Amino acid sequence: MSQHGFTLWFTGLSGSGKSTLTDMLYAELKERRGLKVERLDGDEVRKNLSKGLGFSKEDRDTNIRRIGYVCHLLTRNDVIAIAAAISPYRAIRDENRGLIGSDQFIEIYVETPLEVLVQRDVKGLYAKALRGEIKEFTGVSDPYEPPLAPEVHIRSDIETPQQSFAKVIGYLEGRNLISRDGATG
Amino acid sequence: MSQHGFTLWFTGLSGSGKSTLTDMLYAELKERRGLKVERLDGDEVRKNLSKGLGFSKEDRDTNIRRIGYVCHLLTRNDVIAIAAAISPYRAIRDENRGLIGSDQFIEIYVETPLEVLVQRDVKGLYAKALRGEIKEFTGVSDPYEPPLAPEVHIRSDIETPQQSFAKVIGYLEGRNLISRDGATG
Repeated sequence: MSQHGFTLWFTGLSGSGKSTLTDMLYAELKERRGLKVERLDGDEVRKNLSKGLGFSKEDRDTNIRRIGYVCHLLTRNDVIAIAAAISPYRAIRDENRGLIGSDQFIEIYVETPLEVLVQRDVKGLYAKALRGEIKEFTGVSDPYEPPLAPEVHIRSDIETPQQSFAKVIGYLEGRNLISRDGATG
Repeated sequence: MSQHGFTLWFTGLSGSGKSTLTDMLYAELKERRGLKVERLDGDEVRKNLSKGLGFSKEDRDTNIRRIGYVCHLLTRNDVIAIAAAISPYRAIRDENRGLIGSDQFIEIYVETPLEVLVQRDVKGLYAKALRGEIKEFTGVSDPYEPPLAPEVHIRSDIETPQQSFAKVIGYLEGRNLISRDGATG
């Protein structure tokens, strides 16, 4: 069986657990199942494709469009693309959905309520943002528009990473985007 | 047989015939041989990955590095990437060679002497550049550093496009990067 491409588009606030989950999925799909997978996380892309861009709405949109464009190139060449960026604006996510193709675009909303993130604050970023030391911080001083109908909805405050991981894998198997033996339909 | 990725990196002055040749190769590899091929030409990339960048050395370098990064992602996922941009600076081309891997990076120098390009001047760009109406025009008011040891050297002033095309295909077959039945070794 040959592999077909798709894009797993993770969206959610900083600290919501996108990276933890994409690490687990990358390892599963690439290493365990031997599929072709490429990961595009926000920081990596900002270094390689978007150096010089800031965090204004316009710059964020440009950054997210670039990630979408690369996911599009990979997906149409039968590679699985995993994008993990906050991607706060619904319209730009939907633009990428249109570019990549609705059947190949799996939006995964990683939700944790803001108050939980502020309480945890592993990197101390929310405290800084609340003190005004970081400007344009999504969820605090910059908007976040949650997906209205994500393909998978993760509640990382009440699920374990293993449960969230199983939900994504289950969804992909359910749609025959991946099969149990590793290849894709 | 499964396909292995590589990058065909075309470099040469404006009007030297890079696009003609990449059109022919894209059609051959993708449509006739059924391989996975993605084309990244300078204008397309400037629209999708490098909007806002100009033609200073720094901006050109950034643009060429971005093309290289995307070629790298495609190549390591077994896709053939075809890049066609003037890419005037040797050091940045060599940086991309290092990133993509020397075995997978095929540099194709498309050479036509400047005086021939000025004489032909299909788009009238050289006349404008010589009158100073276009600044930073490679070959006229901006440097071009030819490859020292390109994998394929095309002389588009004295070869027909068919001859140049056959040279590239012959090189790829000779190295078993593609085989006559379409798959790659």
